[in-house]
Amino acid sequence: MTRGSAGGGFSRRQLLIGGAAAAGAGAATALGAEAAWRAATGSEGSSATTVGDAVVPFHGEHQAGIETPAQAHALFVALDLHEAVDVAALRRLMRIVSDDAARLTRGEPALADSEPELALVPARLTVTFGFGSAFVARAGATASPTWLRPLPAFTVDRLQPAWSDGDLLIQLGADDPVTVAHAARMLLKDARAFGSVRWSQRGFRRAAGTEASGTTMRNLFGQVDGTVNPEPGSADFADVVWVGDGPRWLDGGTGMVLRRVAMDLDGWDRVDRPGREFAIGRRLDTGAPLTGEAERDDPDFEAVTELGFPVISEVSHLRRARSDDPRERILRRGYNYDDAPAGASVSDAGLIFVSYQADVDRQFVPIQRRLDEVDLLNQWTAPIGSAVFAIPPGCDEGGYIGETLV
Amino acid sequence: MTRGSAGGGFSRRQLLIGGAAAAGAGAATALGAEAAWRAATGSEGSSATTVGDAVVPFHGEHQAGIETPAQAHALFVALDLHEAVDVAALRRLMRIVSDDAARLTRGEPALADSEPELALVPARLTVTFGFGSAFVARAGATASPTWLRPLPAFTVDRLQPAWSDGDLLIQLGADDPVTVAHAARMLLKDARAFGSVRWSQRGFRRAAGTEASGTTMRNLFGQVDGTVNPEPGSADFADVVWVGDGPRWLDGGTGMVLRRVAMDLDGWDRVDRPGREFAIGRRLDTGAPLTGEAERDDPDFEAVTELGFPVISEVSHLRRARSDDPRERILRRGYNYDDAPAGASVSDAGLIFVSYQADVDRQFVPIQRRLDEVDLLNQWTAPIGSAVFAIPPGCDEGGYIGETLV
Repeated sequence: MTRGSAGGGFSRRQLLIGGAAAAGAGAATALGAEAAWRAATGSEGSSATTVGDAVVPFHGEHQAGIETPAQAHALFVALDLHEAVDVAALRRLMRIVSDDAARLTRGEPALADSEPELALVPARLTVTFGFGSAFVARAGATASPTWLRPLPAFTVDRLQPAWSDGDLLIQLGADDPVTVAHAARMLLKDARAFGSVRWSQRGFRRAAGTEASGTTMRNLFGQVDGTVNPEPGSADFADVVWVGDGPRWLDGGTGMVLRRVAMDLDGWDRVDRPGREFAIGRRLDTGAPLTGEAERDDPDFEAVTELGFPVISEVSHLRRARSDDPRERILRRGYNYDDAPAGASVSDAGLIFVSYQADVDRQFVPIQRRLDEVDLLNQWTAPIGSAVFAIPPGCDEGGYIGETLV
Repeated sequence: MTRGSAGGGFSRRQLLIGGAAAAGAGAATALGAEAAWRAATGSEGSSATTVGDAVVPFHGEHQAGIETPAQAHALFVALDLHEAVDVAALRRLMRIVSDDAARLTRGEPALADSEPELALVPARLTVTFGFGSAFVARAGATASPTWLRPLPAFTVDRLQPAWSDGDLLIQLGADDPVTVAHAARMLLKDARAFGSVRWSQRGFRRAAGTEASGTTMRNLFGQVDGTVNPEPGSADFADVVWVGDGPRWLDGGTGMVLRRVAMDLDGWDRVDRPGREFAIGRRLDTGAPLTGEAERDDPDFEAVTELGFPVISEVSHLRRARSDDPRERILRRGYNYDDAPAGASVSDAGLIFVSYQADVDRQFVPIQRRLDEVDLLNQWTAPIGSAVFAIPPGCDEGGYIGETLV
């Protein structure tokens, strides 16, 4: 929905393409990076392509990167704040990173960009900031959502502190991996005086241009994952995601859960397709419930086989994840990860599970509790990291993310 | 040049899109993965998009993935062979992985594919195999290229064994990161009985559709990197890359050097643009030599400033890399890497330097030796991994990579 909205009559990619811009940009070398960029982007001609030039607006009522259709690449970085950081410093931090995020998402260099040529391909870049409980406390907030704390312990958890928690989250998404790398570096340079990196997780989905828009992602089990999401732009979406009755500073924001879920691909290999579909409750090919024909068909939990057993097992992932309470719904927006394996293992892969919901305790926790009690999929999955963040609302031009809090 | 060459009248992506194929694919569930795939791909209708459907032929005189314009994503995996692996086992190994590589590059599932739905987006997938010296010895070769051994030691080297050497290289490239992950897993499952993973390196470039075709990549220093490459398809390319007078089994193959080069982005930050351009010998904006206007202008090493100093410094990277001997040329096809930083560092980033040349000793080593003696860029770069492989020629349908050797 935001594709092709790269505004203005200039081509910010002139520097990358060279050619027509060479004379102007060459003459501008002595003027420094920003001047060179302005000289080049003021010139004529464009080799614009939609994937690279598409811009998602940074400013607005809500932060971008949540309702935005998921980009191909994501990076989630959690920072621990330095001890000396006080309210005034938090304000400075959020002003700086908001300003640079706004520039970078437009396909413009950061204010002190040392590699401005790498900033010129926005590729639907979004930057989303989230606050951990320590950030909110440091800000001196008089109210904090009750759910802004580590999730309750689940029996399936194999949590590692190195993949958990954090004071400030920076979530980046774009359809180009170089864009993500460059934007992350610029923002981390801004933030380095205020905190240090606690963890950093890279994820991916299908590349832009490979799938029909609206296609539900598949995880590395081959499973269609995220079918029952609210429709972006709908009233239902707003109900599920945006905070309306929390602390005032969080109005128009949301709650975020990030869980690093290791997937045992070697174990999954030993399960045949009927066994996999039984565990999931859906067909692997179409993602349809075992009682339906198409991905979005409603599952029929009453249907039984000739022998009288439920077609969708009562311990399948689909059955256990589905609540009878319509308030227990979430927006899922996860990413695959696939890192270099250690030792004799063939894979170190899994899912960066990401969900957004107005109230983590009321919406996410009951679902996770049911899955924790029993879910056939638990046999091949293990949460190894967990974090909860409050995602503050968006801001207007000239404002900054977090201005309602600090 | 291979874009859009996805052949046949079927849509191999029917399973991903669902919809029209649902009935047929659903009915085929009991028939197993391959049957389901055949049922789906035989049906009508297509939501084909060029990025996902583009196929690079696996079979041919040379292996794919060398002359192929670089894809957005690459994975390089080196295996150590198990001790028990003999010539017959090597032959089995190469038959299996060649067969599955051929299927996967067509956008078809591997023979025993456990997640066939993940195989349906070829996205210009290429799989390229390379042999380390131990593989060639194990194969009982009577002749081996003299350069198939670790490179001579260079003073700049900070090599770590965990990033160096290896018996069998599997190089994967595609414009989609899920395609790379799935293909890698399938091939490593094939290979696990024969060897274990020694190292695994993921790299990226700009996403497909973000740049004009033929654009030279930029590394994470922002530097245009790889300007002086031979033109694919030219006689010059063949001279530089393909082996013509090595051991018979390597005719039509090439030599590959892979160096993991850590880049000190924090240090590079402290250098201003004139300082960076002086170190490189090229402009950062256009990539033009400091004596020229366009990227591909010939550098003028005789040009001097008003003060009588060379415009392109004698210790710049450009000057030191350039040989007066026309035989000292290579094909560069590297990738950026950007992993999670440890400790107080803001980045763990660099370049997976990859070059192909008919004779590593005659073409690559003299260049590297000059750069090792002096190159201003050395101040901010350090090779931390190094490996050399013989890339055997391609094979025809029904054949296998390495058939000229084992």
